[in-house]
Amino acid sequence: MTAMAREMAEQPEVIGALLGRRHEFAARLRAIAPEPLTGVILIARGSSDNAAIYGRYVLEAALRRPVSLAAPSLWTRYGLAEDLRGYLAVGVSQSGKTPEIADTLERVKAAGAAAVAVTNDGGSPLAGIADEAIDLGVGPEDAVPATKTVTAQLAAFAILAHALGEPLWPEEAWAAVPRAQAEVLADDDAAAAAGAAIAGSASHVQLGRGFLFAVALEGALKVAETTGLASQGFSVADFLHGPIAIAHEGTTAVAYAAPGPVAKDVREAAARARDAGAQLIAVGDAAGDADLRVPIPAGVPEALAPLVHVVRAQQLALHATLALGLDPDKPRGLTKVTPTT
Amino acid sequence: MTAMAREMAEQPEVIGALLGRRHEFAARLRAIAPEPLTGVILIARGSSDNAAIYGRYVLEAALRRPVSLAAPSLWTRYGLAEDLRGYLAVGVSQSGKTPEIADTLERVKAAGAAAVAVTNDGGSPLAGIADEAIDLGVGPEDAVPATKTVTAQLAAFAILAHALGEPLWPEEAWAAVPRAQAEVLADDDAAAAAGAAIAGSASHVQLGRGFLFAVALEGALKVAETTGLASQGFSVADFLHGPIAIAHEGTTAVAYAAPGPVAKDVREAAARARDAGAQLIAVGDAAGDADLRVPIPAGVPEALAPLVHVVRAQQLALHATLALGLDPDKPRGLTKVTPTT
Repeated sequence: MTAMAREMAEQPEVIGALLGRRHEFAARLRAIAPEPLTGVILIARGSSDNAAIYGRYVLEAALRRPVSLAAPSLWTRYGLAEDLRGYLAVGVSQSGKTPEIADTLERVKAAGAAAVAVTNDGGSPLAGIADEAIDLGVGPEDAVPATKTVTAQLAAFAILAHALGEPLWPEEAWAAVPRAQAEVLADDDAAAAAGAAIAGSASHVQLGRGFLFAVALEGALKVAETTGLASQGFSVADFLHGPIAIAHEGTTAVAYAAPGPVAKDVREAAARARDAGAQLIAVGDAAGDADLRVPIPAGVPEALAPLVHVVRAQQLALHATLALGLDPDKPRGLTKVTPTT
Repeated sequence: MTAMAREMAEQPEVIGALLGRRHEFAARLRAIAPEPLTGVILIARGSSDNAAIYGRYVLEAALRRPVSLAAPSLWTRYGLAEDLRGYLAVGVSQSGKTPEIADTLERVKAAGAAAVAVTNDGGSPLAGIADEAIDLGVGPEDAVPATKTVTAQLAAFAILAHALGEPLWPEEAWAAVPRAQAEVLADDDAAAAAGAAIAGSASHVQLGRGFLFAVALEGALKVAETTGLASQGFSVADFLHGPIAIAHEGTTAVAYAAPGPVAKDVREAAARARDAGAQLIAVGDAAGDADLRVPIPAGVPEALAPLVHVVRAQQLALHATLALGLDPDKPRGLTKVTPTT
């Protein structure tokens, strides 16, 4: 078994354990969050940036304050000076060692923001800078493509939103997440077929909207990283404003939806991609006239659904990679910690 | 001559005229901007969204307040209620008719934000909703790929930043913009060679950082729209966190830089893409060991450089399209106004 597959399989247990510590995190986060809260600033790169896109939606929906994704270069390269009192800043890095993220969080904290680190290493530089850390505690990740650490970052944003804002889901939904993840992992036949289709395509897009937009970005990045295939994630609204031109014969399109107010938008955009010649792979509630369907278990509310759909996204990338005869654990040209500054 | 080429050629004149009205706009914008200003929210899709990415940098650098790109679905689909008094909201749509953008600006205004429309139609629904409009006044755009309207949106953000924030460039820089655009348009041999290289590639990426990140996004979208080629724009920091895996033999990579604190980052990432097998096209100060170089005239400060580099980005897409024997004015599957809701 590859390290990527093994680390994916650990998710129900490690994510369940992380979600189980939510009350402890909530108390510590409430103690440092500004009151009143002016806004939230998220700092991340790569897969962590995709997790932050989910954070952007779930935090703004729960906290009802504007959420901004930081432009790190403004802080680290252009020397921005800004008054951020009243803001909560969240730096996200699985290693906690990306210099750019730690440097930006430090500068944003110096500007007055309360600083939270989301990291898999509670002893990392990022955690050291922050006022509080959500230490993901999911254990070492050996495969270069991040899987369980990304899902844990999504979980951290759900915990943060629930701790500081209005509840977007009932209490019993927390336990449904690891259960649904286990069901997804136990049944990957449809994902294997879809992965093989992706492996045979010339280009690849993934589509989502709202809470699941982040999964489309992360799923597309995972395919790009592991297969080297040109692969892009889009919000369906942005996709229809131009990029649909790249959906044609030879393109595979994955669409993610959960029952909720944007599912119809996703199905409509997915149908347009299929009409343009793309082979459509529908995950969850995105079906309609898909070529291939990959099911998602019922029972997880839309605002938490990314924690389950992302496991499907990982399976698609893993199976595409295996179908190409490549090693998913060591994609060429990539290393585990990317030292951008 | 195609409509796209004709509309590109109009840019020095229409952008010069727009920039010449900056004092009139500044007075009207200062009259409605909240004082003190809590933050800025930008609302856009497609090419307008790329212009808003420039807006995100130039406004945060000049105003020293957090700038957030709105997630329209939170407002139009999930019924977000939020208190936005003290915020400035900017809705961007060349037609002013994209229902989603108008609807989101209306809701954000109802939540207390001062509302500005950036549009090429002062009589459009978007302008009607706003407290003030920057009417771009660049005339009708017949080609489906937006060129002069996007450059005009970039100009609108420069005007907005200069009107409400600290100056990022000296007064004489305004006049240098249309002059540099005219020089770029008058000398497109290098861009034609680069466009032919893009046309012959299997996949395509564009890279930038800081103020020029927006040009990489817009240039990549323009290539995708006009050629149907899988084409993505990246910030160089994000690119190194995974997507570099898609740079290999058969990939063309365009890198944009202007003299400034991020040019070295762009050159380093571009060199890594080339080492991985991509054919490197360097625009402006991104050179290093490029396969092809496309010059940018000197004299425009980095924070205004996107208004010049974007004309090169348009030339690359136009020449790639012509090299493929396609009609740039009517890419398949696209229409001028995209009615996403």
